[in-house]
Amino acid sequence: MEEITSPQNPRIRRIIQLQSKARVRKEEGSFITEGVRIFKDTPDEALRAVYVTKERLPELQDLILGKTRSAGAPVCVIPQALMEKISDTKTPQGILCEVRMPSCTREDLLREEAPLLLMLEAIQDPGNLGTMVRTAEAAGAAGIILSRECADLYSAKTVRATMSAIFRMPILTDADLREEIRALQENRVRIYAACLDDRACPYDRFDYTKGTGYGSAFLVGNEGNGLQEETIRLSDETVYLPMAGQIESLNAAVAASILLYEAARQRRNSGRE
Amino acid sequence: MEEITSPQNPRIRRIIQLQSKARVRKEEGSFITEGVRIFKDTPDEALRAVYVTKERLPELQDLILGKTRSAGAPVCVIPQALMEKISDTKTPQGILCEVRMPSCTREDLLREEAPLLLMLEAIQDPGNLGTMVRTAEAAGAAGIILSRECADLYSAKTVRATMSAIFRMPILTDADLREEIRALQENRVRIYAACLDDRACPYDRFDYTKGTGYGSAFLVGNEGNGLQEETIRLSDETVYLPMAGQIESLNAAVAASILLYEAARQRRNSGRE
Repeated sequence: MEEITSPQNPRIRRIIQLQSKARVRKEEGSFITEGVRIFKDTPDEALRAVYVTKERLPELQDLILGKTRSAGAPVCVIPQALMEKISDTKTPQGILCEVRMPSCTREDLLREEAPLLLMLEAIQDPGNLGTMVRTAEAAGAAGIILSRECADLYSAKTVRATMSAIFRMPILTDADLREEIRALQENRVRIYAACLDDRACPYDRFDYTKGTGYGSAFLVGNEGNGLQEETIRLSDETVYLPMAGQIESLNAAVAASILLYEAARQRRNSGRE
Repeated sequence: MEEITSPQNPRIRRIIQLQSKARVRKEEGSFITEGVRIFKDTPDEALRAVYVTKERLPELQDLILGKTRSAGAPVCVIPQALMEKISDTKTPQGILCEVRMPSCTREDLLREEAPLLLMLEAIQDPGNLGTMVRTAEAAGAAGIILSRECADLYSAKTVRATMSAIFRMPILTDADLREEIRALQENRVRIYAACLDDRACPYDRFDYTKGTGYGSAFLVGNEGNGLQEETIRLSDETVYLPMAGQIESLNAAVAASILLYEAARQRRNSGRE
């Protein structure tokens, strides 16, 4: 274990860069996680460095040594004031890690038969994005595809909102959605674009079960503007969420969650019958 | 129209108090809205004062005069710098209002037969709370009940997240949930408590249609701790959202949305058959 006290230490400066700049995260293939829970959920081999406060060290030492033993990530002990400087949260939990970004290919999304997938175009809110990753895992989705225009998956706020699902869900980032739509269609996945226009059908009118022999991918667009016209055109079907009252649209994470859970409900019930 | 330029003006000081203090909002029965869209959606008689920047006045003048004509709310023209001072957002939209809180009684929630209701216990995140109000309207809910421990419904962030549904949904605030559960049960409403424990049934196993002769109220608890044991005990049924993978819980707004949309789906489909 190394003790660091200076804010000018190159390791500390690196963390600050990784916290604040999506470009640096991408170049380095690293991102930052904070807290004990996500530390426990991090694959040992993805840990690149662990930072822990003196105060939390006694209680976390065994856990940290256990997780860093095999891959040999360095462990740095830092004062509370330095943790506050490098943390993204107001009340840091006392443990912060540099973690290697998981890799994901299109093939990773297509490993199971008739997969349930989520495709996102230009989602801007980090909390929404993270919540969708979390819900997608809970709904049994096989993976997620993010368009180039989406907010950075690896920002502190998004990572936090995923509740560790970021380590378990195959997620293809920076995708060209048009290309991915075509590739999924060639692999017997139907694309259901969520939109508000007249051509759309209520979302619960389709059969999303594996029994159809097809996978199902829900395509959800930007919070303010929805999906691009061209993206809708390439999809197999357009679906909408019926809305009572005078509400014009739902929160994007809410819309994605309702769609995914409808597919999950159908798949669960068709399995039982 | 009155022109205000001093940050010391009593009206400006009042707005700052209303923006920052839930207690002041409650004492005055007032809250603050920002933006053109919510201004259009505000009932004319609820407007207590309108603040508009010089820059936006020409374009908004007709709208403002139209909406303030009947109830006679004062209109104050202020410089951009003052708007930035009183606004909750980084880029103020140039119009901000003091608005009277809507009133709501238990009877307002029970006007329709077999109503769909949402009850929230100790929801802490303002964005979650506002999103739930928005989704409840979209799902056709007849009203919402908030426990005393919930975040303030009238904070800027919550109001914004409701997307104007705050003016259209009957919402009972500061409620004693135990009392309300009993009252709903006496009025033929079944209470479905969302929880993760062994006693619960998958949420889609119940019949939430009006055909049952009963209303349905979903009870959703605090983001971190869920519902209190006593609240669960008083409910008629406990329901859970099946979760794949290693996810332990869903975001509270996501969970509420999936429950409400399942009830809406059943009600829509039972009507058609």
